[in-house]
Amino acid sequence: MGIKLGILGLGTVGTGTVQLLQDNIGRHSLLQLVEIYRVGVKSLDKPRDVTLPQSVLTTDLESIVNDPEVDIVVELIGGLEPARELILKAIQNGKHVVTANKAVISRFGTEIFTSANRQGVYVMLEAAVGGGIPVIQPLKQSLSVNRIHTVTGIINGTTNYILTRMQTEGSSFDAVLADAQKLGYAEADPTADVDGWDAADKISILASLAFGGRINREEVSCEGIRQVSKTDITYANNLGFVIKLLAIAKKVSPTSSTLSVRVHPTLVPKTHPLASINGVYNAILVEGEPLGQVMFFGPGAGAGATASAVSSDILNLVARVGSSEAAPLDPLLGCSHQDYCQIAPQNELTARFYTRFLTLDQPGVIGKLGTSFGQHGVSLESIVQTGFQDKLAEIVVVTHDVLEGDFKQALEEIRSFEAIHSIPSLLRVL
Amino acid sequence: MGIKLGILGLGTVGTGTVQLLQDNIGRHSLLQLVEIYRVGVKSLDKPRDVTLPQSVLTTDLESIVNDPEVDIVVELIGGLEPARELILKAIQNGKHVVTANKAVISRFGTEIFTSANRQGVYVMLEAAVGGGIPVIQPLKQSLSVNRIHTVTGIINGTTNYILTRMQTEGSSFDAVLADAQKLGYAEADPTADVDGWDAADKISILASLAFGGRINREEVSCEGIRQVSKTDITYANNLGFVIKLLAIAKKVSPTSSTLSVRVHPTLVPKTHPLASINGVYNAILVEGEPLGQVMFFGPGAGAGATASAVSSDILNLVARVGSSEAAPLDPLLGCSHQDYCQIAPQNELTARFYTRFLTLDQPGVIGKLGTSFGQHGVSLESIVQTGFQDKLAEIVVVTHDVLEGDFKQALEEIRSFEAIHSIPSLLRVL
Repeated sequence: MGIKLGILGLGTVGTGTVQLLQDNIGRHSLLQLVEIYRVGVKSLDKPRDVTLPQSVLTTDLESIVNDPEVDIVVELIGGLEPARELILKAIQNGKHVVTANKAVISRFGTEIFTSANRQGVYVMLEAAVGGGIPVIQPLKQSLSVNRIHTVTGIINGTTNYILTRMQTEGSSFDAVLADAQKLGYAEADPTADVDGWDAADKISILASLAFGGRINREEVSCEGIRQVSKTDITYANNLGFVIKLLAIAKKVSPTSSTLSVRVHPTLVPKTHPLASINGVYNAILVEGEPLGQVMFFGPGAGAGATASAVSSDILNLVARVGSSEAAPLDPLLGCSHQDYCQIAPQNELTARFYTRFLTLDQPGVIGKLGTSFGQHGVSLESIVQTGFQDKLAEIVVVTHDVLEGDFKQALEEIRSFEAIHSIPSLLRVL
Repeated sequence: MGIKLGILGLGTVGTGTVQLLQDNIGRHSLLQLVEIYRVGVKSLDKPRDVTLPQSVLTTDLESIVNDPEVDIVVELIGGLEPARELILKAIQNGKHVVTANKAVISRFGTEIFTSANRQGVYVMLEAAVGGGIPVIQPLKQSLSVNRIHTVTGIINGTTNYILTRMQTEGSSFDAVLADAQKLGYAEADPTADVDGWDAADKISILASLAFGGRINREEVSCEGIRQVSKTDITYANNLGFVIKLLAIAKKVSPTSSTLSVRVHPTLVPKTHPLASINGVYNAILVEGEPLGQVMFFGPGAGAGATASAVSSDILNLVARVGSSEAAPLDPLLGCSHQDYCQIAPQNELTARFYTRFLTLDQPGVIGKLGTSFGQHGVSLESIVQTGFQDKLAEIVVVTHDVLEGDFKQALEEIRSFEAIHSIPSLLRVL
C-alpha cells in the first residue's frame, strides 16, 4: 500500500523531484512507500529527462486534485493561477499539499491555511524559501521555543549572484545581469528577482513562522538592486562593507509585537556572518532569546536542492499519513495562526543610511548638507567628498541610526538645493 | 492538564532550561502545557538563579525516574554514570527522555535506543550536538531524503576558541588554554575537549543519523589540538589555510557503505565555508545528493543556546504526547537503526598531510625526505625549508592525497634517519 502522489508540473523542480523519488535506494526508507501516481504537464509530447508511464501523465491538472486515489498533491507549477485554485481544490478534497510556491503562499496563505485547518490537512512549504536549506521545519519545530526578534536573509540567489559578481569583477549591474541571463541564473524577465519581489514573498513567509502571525504581503516594503552601482560597491568596500540584498523581519523593539518587514540592498559589515555568503547561495540568520544567533546556509535554488526540500515535506507527510489517517493535525506541522502581525510604517523605523550625491563643484555644499540633516534631527557618521564624476562633485553621506521619516524629509529639502545635481544611490546600512 | 517534567540536574543547562520554561510568554504556546514537576539536584541548600518550590526539588534522582506522574525525564547531569542508569530506568518506566548527554548517547546509544523502541518511548538529543543549532532534527526529518556522503563539523567550542585566539593573537596553545580556563571557556581538566573526545562523541551521533546505522564509538579515531603550535598556524596561514579541529564522517567512496569517522586538527582552505567559523561558534556542513552543501551555524554551548535545544525537544514531545498517548512512534523522531556502520581502518584511507620536521643542518636532507616518500608511494605537493629553530633546520612537507598507511610507513623510515631531530607536527589537510 503506497502513498499516492499527484504532482502538478514537470519543469526543473518537478523533474528533480521525480528523479529523486524514482531513485530511492540509500535514502530514507519511508520514501519507498511513495507512488508517483499522476503527473500533470502542459504537453504530453515534450521530451523529458525522466521516464514515466504514459498512463501517469495528463494535461488535465484538475483531474489530479479531484482524483480520490491521490493522497498528496505536490504543486510545482509556480505562479498565482491556476496554482492557487488547484491547491484550494486539493485541500477541499481532503488532500495534503506540498508546494514550492512562495508567491501563492505569501499572497493567499490566509485563504489556503484557513481551508487546510478546516479540512484537517497539511500544507507543507519547505521548498518555498531557501531552496534546499531546511529552515521552515526548524522555525516551526525547534526555534519557536525562543522569543525570536530578528530574521535576516539572503534569500534570492539571482540578486546575490549579480551583486557578488559586481563585487569581485567590478562590473556594472547591466553587464552582469545580461551575462546571468545568458547563463540561466536570471530569467528573461528578471523583475521579480532584481526588484526584490521574490525576496519579499519569502520574508513574508519566514516572518509569519518566526513571529506566529499572518503577514499582509502588501505591507512589506521592497527595494531592488537596480540602483546599486559599481561606484557604490567600491565605496562600500572602502568603508568596510559589502552590499547585499537583505530581507529583514524584526520586532521594532524587544517589548513590542509590531514588526518591520522589508527588502532592500544593504551595506553589510564584512565581519557579519551574512557578508561572506556569495554567488547563488542563500543564508538565513535567526536571532532570538535565549538562543542568540543561528544561521542556515545552502543552495537557494536548483533542481536537486529544491527536490530535496520538496521530498523532505513528502517524507514528513508519509510518516504521519502512514501511521493513522484520523489523527488530529500535529500542531508543529500545521499552521495555527489566526491574527495578522502589525507592521510598522516605514517612516517610523530607525535605520542607518548611505547616500551618494552628485553636486555642482561649489564651496559650502558639504556644510549645507550637514546643516539640513542636522535641522531634521539626522545624526551623521561621515560626510566625505569622494571625488568627481565628469564635472560634478561626488559626496557620500553615512548616517547613524535615524528615523526614516526624518531622513526622508531632510532628503526632500536637500533635493531642492540648487547645488544638488542628483542623488544616484540611497542604501541602508546594517 | 499539564505534561509533567522530571528534570535531572540544575547546573548551567538545567537552570537555563527552567528559566526558559518558567518565562514562557512569547514562546510557542504549547510550552504552556509543561509543568516542572520534579527537579533532581545534588544539594537542596545551594543558592540558585531560579526559584522553585521546595516540594519540587529532591536529591533523590531515582525517585524522579520512578515517579508514575512524570511524563518526560530531562537528563542534564552529564557524565556516564549515573546518567546512563537513570535514562534506562526512565525508559523502562515508559517515560520519554530528553538528554544533552553526548557521552552517554555515543557510548550506550545501542542499549538506550533498543530499550526505548521496545517501550515505545522517544529519546531526544538535539542538545547533545551543536548547542542551540537545530541539526539533529533536520538530519532526521529533512536531510534524510538525500544520499548523504559527508558530514564535517566544528563541534567543540573550546578548541575552536583556543585555535581562533592562537590564530588571531599569535599566542601559544598553553597560554591560550590557561586564559580560556580563567574565562570559563575551558574546564579545569580540559582533556575531553582538547584531546578531541567530546568532538568524537558528537560526530558519532551525527554519523549515526546521517548514515542510518549505529556507530561503534571505539572505532572513531581521534587526535586533539595539543600538538598544534603557533609555528604551524603561521605556516598554514602562508599556505592559504587556517587550522581547525574538524570532526568528519564520510563514505570512503560514493558506492561504498563503509565510513571514515574521525576527529583531527586540519588545515582548512581559507575559502572553505568552515574556515570562517571562529570563537566558541560551531558549524556543521552536510553534503549529499542531490542537495549539495548545507551548513548550520550557531552557538555551540552556553546556558541559553543549550536550553533552547532542550526545550525544542520538550516541545516536540508535548506536541505528540498531548495528542494521543497510544499512537505508534513517529518514525522520523524515533531511532530505528539496527545495524552497525562499517568503519574503515585509518591506514586504508586517503588523506593529505602537512608535516613539519626539525633536522640537522646538512645538505641533502630534503632529497632524502623526498626519496623516502617517493619510495613509499607518497606523492608530494611541496617540500620547503622554512627556516631555522635554534640550530635545527625546519622543513615543511605537504602531500597530495595519499594512503595513510603508505604515509605512516614513510614517516617510520624517515624518523630513523640520523639527520632527523624530531617531527613536531603532523596535521591533515582538507
